[in-house]
Amino acid sequence: MRPENDTFLKALLKEKTEYTPVWLMRQAGRYLPEYCETRARAGSFMKLAMNPYLACEVTLQPVERFSLDAAILFSDILTVPDAMGLGLSFAAGEGPRFEKIVRDEKTVSELFVPDPNDKLKYVTDAVVEIRKALNNRIPLIGFSGSPFTLACYMVEGRSSTSFSNVKKMMYQRPDLFHKILDVNTKAVTAYLNAQIEAGAQAVMIFDSWGGALANRQYREFSLAYMKKIVEGLTKEHDGDKVPSIIFTKGDAPWVEEIANSGADAMGLDWTVSLGSVRKQIQDKVALQGNLDPAVLFADEKVIRDQARAVIDDYGMIGNGGHVFNLGHGIDKTTPPESVGALVDEVHSYSVKFHR
Amino acid sequence: MRPENDTFLKALLKEKTEYTPVWLMRQAGRYLPEYCETRARAGSFMKLAMNPYLACEVTLQPVERFSLDAAILFSDILTVPDAMGLGLSFAAGEGPRFEKIVRDEKTVSELFVPDPNDKLKYVTDAVVEIRKALNNRIPLIGFSGSPFTLACYMVEGRSSTSFSNVKKMMYQRPDLFHKILDVNTKAVTAYLNAQIEAGAQAVMIFDSWGGALANRQYREFSLAYMKKIVEGLTKEHDGDKVPSIIFTKGDAPWVEEIANSGADAMGLDWTVSLGSVRKQIQDKVALQGNLDPAVLFADEKVIRDQARAVIDDYGMIGNGGHVFNLGHGIDKTTPPESVGALVDEVHSYSVKFHR
Repeated sequence: MRPENDTFLKALLKEKTEYTPVWLMRQAGRYLPEYCETRARAGSFMKLAMNPYLACEVTLQPVERFSLDAAILFSDILTVPDAMGLGLSFAAGEGPRFEKIVRDEKTVSELFVPDPNDKLKYVTDAVVEIRKALNNRIPLIGFSGSPFTLACYMVEGRSSTSFSNVKKMMYQRPDLFHKILDVNTKAVTAYLNAQIEAGAQAVMIFDSWGGALANRQYREFSLAYMKKIVEGLTKEHDGDKVPSIIFTKGDAPWVEEIANSGADAMGLDWTVSLGSVRKQIQDKVALQGNLDPAVLFADEKVIRDQARAVIDDYGMIGNGGHVFNLGHGIDKTTPPESVGALVDEVHSYSVKFHR
Repeated sequence: MRPENDTFLKALLKEKTEYTPVWLMRQAGRYLPEYCETRARAGSFMKLAMNPYLACEVTLQPVERFSLDAAILFSDILTVPDAMGLGLSFAAGEGPRFEKIVRDEKTVSELFVPDPNDKLKYVTDAVVEIRKALNNRIPLIGFSGSPFTLACYMVEGRSSTSFSNVKKMMYQRPDLFHKILDVNTKAVTAYLNAQIEAGAQAVMIFDSWGGALANRQYREFSLAYMKKIVEGLTKEHDGDKVPSIIFTKGDAPWVEEIANSGADAMGLDWTVSLGSVRKQIQDKVALQGNLDPAVLFADEKVIRDQARAVIDDYGMIGNGGHVFNLGHGIDKTTPPESVGALVDEVHSYSVKFHR
């Protein structure tokens, strides 16, 4: 059964809607004081993410504050490699760390596809809790990191800007790297299908680092595996279609290939023009994006002007589908009232584009 | 008078050459033990960059080791704002810092165009020294940071990944931000012309951070100013044309606009296909790039294969012009022998593409 407000799902499937739906990447996050309060109560980021009741609480926080058209599961993108036994932790003030680093034949051969109903049950439990709390008002998005993005952290052992180790393995030992990506692909497919089974009404694959790859390597080592995941996804659940979104940050060079990946929609960052991409891919899939998150540091007038510019750029909806979003996660220093103005502007200004 | 080996200049001007010329961004750098030795002797990076004799010494080091087709002035991209009195320094193990940060009406109004023959004389002196030392074997490239990239450091006061302050000013106070860019443009034009006057035989504008801008904002706040610089550049010196190169890291969304900027060539990073860009811009300008620098971490066979793939991707030269380069600066952990193999492969393999 579709939620009362199914604008987001309709836009992904390119069905007619009354206005342009909007949600924001990382909408449940540190820019919200209530999130910081819950996180402090949880004790750590991992404890927050691994507790279905607290994960549900923070997922609902932005939805209670703003008229968002979708909720997104609160979780971390590295849950899957953690469930493979790599030992995820977050050092204070730093990014994620893995205890076990995957860089040779032995560590690669020890990788396995975790049963999502075992080690990742806290995630599907959170999905169930969130669906209950949402009470079918708006849809819930499930998500996972992409096989390549997960591999970046698994091989580097932590965040990286140069990706020296992962790229060295990719160029020097493509066979070994393909093995990691293959396990990740099977694991992510099972993980997303378990989220769908538990109640996720759309799914998104976050390929945070695919844009660091060279042109051919992106197709071979990132997109090819996301395509396999999309092929293996449950396409319908409880009688409703479950649309999928692929988002590679910095995907400008590959928009045509992504449009042909089988996913229903493509995320785009702010470097591209939505109107140009739309023409380039001839409305093949819906587009999600693409306001620069830094716009939210400006005052209300600027925010409203820039939101309009994104909607103008996409143009009349016609056969297209546009989900308004930022081009990247919302910054932790964003004033919450900026989000309120943005959501309001998208809803009110976009109406005339849907006639 | 053109240098004995003028392959690089010819390729930029799309004249016929015997093979594809190659040089590498940051070719005089920390991956070379002799560079580290000179830098240690200088005492600091700034002392190295500001001493014309030492700057000349390190500029020549990669040229002595490898059969490179161009030398590039050893200098920092932040010399211009330093000459504006902003007080550049490098904290050990960190990036650049400015003592004076430019974030309000007052600090913006105090900016001025530095006389390149005064505060920046150490740069033109280095150009003169290097030309003497090169003895007309290969051409010397002069360079500057782009107005936008310089503004990033001037407003942030240091390196940034989010560019919160600079983007906040851009969105909130475009008038103020345009003032900074206007001063920078005049300063960079005078600076590059002084380098040409002193002997630089080609010039390159490094727009390291333009790719962080939203689609329209890149055109308004970065490319428009680079175009003005190109318009104001000395086009011929001592009877020879002085070609110009614009390089914005992450420029995939704007290649057509850059091709129409007036510059003779465009730098490209590894995310794009040279062949596709070439078609897109219909050979309007020469292309420089675009090997992933991480390839140089692999063994010789992989390096040679990947170098061939870039040359294959560009295709037969015809009316085009290709300068082989990395898509970004060479990493400090690169084994020097990898560079030797790369240069050798580019020279030998490319011959058949020039028939």
